[in-house]
Amino acid sequence: MKVRNINRVERRDAFLKEKAAGVSIRVAIAEEDGAKNSSMRILEIDPEGFTPLHTHDYEHLMFVVRGAGIVTDGSKECRLEREDVVFVPQGQAHQIKNTGDTELILVSVLPVQRD
Amino acid sequence: MKVRNINRVERRDAFLKEKAAGVSIRVAIAEEDGAKNSSMRILEIDPEGFTPLHTHDYEHLMFVVRGAGIVTDGSKECRLEREDVVFVPQGQAHQIKNTGDTELILVSVLPVQRD
Repeated sequence: MKVRNINRVERRDAFLKEKAAGVSIRVAIAEEDGAKNSSMRILEIDPEGFTPLHTHDYEHLMFVVRGAGIVTDGSKECRLEREDVVFVPQGQAHQIKNTGDTELILVSVLPVQRD
Repeated sequence: MKVRNINRVERRDAFLKEKAAGVSIRVAIAEEDGAKNSSMRILEIDPEGFTPLHTHDYEHLMFVVRGAGIVTDGSKECRLEREDVVFVPQGQAHQIKNTGDTELILVSVLPVQRD
């Protein structure tokens, strides 16, 4: 069993080569920990920050820890607030934007096996 | 894409037939939503509540949203606080106990395919 606090896990910038701003991740639980099915990352988005509008061939589950924002598929927008969950099926475009004054923090769950 | 707030998802008692107390779950994202790899549940444990010490043949990822408690494998105990993550490999015994004065809330991630 492994227990760790996410704030003691290295934070690194994400999406640097794409149209994004102010996004970082902490890898909370990964294959190196013995995970065979799911990995967990913490996504931190600065005020006015956003991920790219992007698509991948695997599903994406998220839980909003704190902050406020929106998720969009490129046309429809949906507001996000604390304790919302988001399910993005494989192949669906998605983008997260921080619309609040504080960091937007999300738990992000992906399959371990992905491209 | 699906977005929902966990507090609007039905809360139901869990582990009723086992040695447990004060535990309920909300199914946040499941196979019915189209999830093929991972499902997400919210685990809520009342003060003095606890899950059974139990084992299952699939891995278990958790994230502590709020509250305080411990996780144990039956011998060693580890304290849990806000923003801790827990990885339990398949086959490892685990039990969560609330040791605080408020509800202990966890995000719980399991494989969709399980017994």
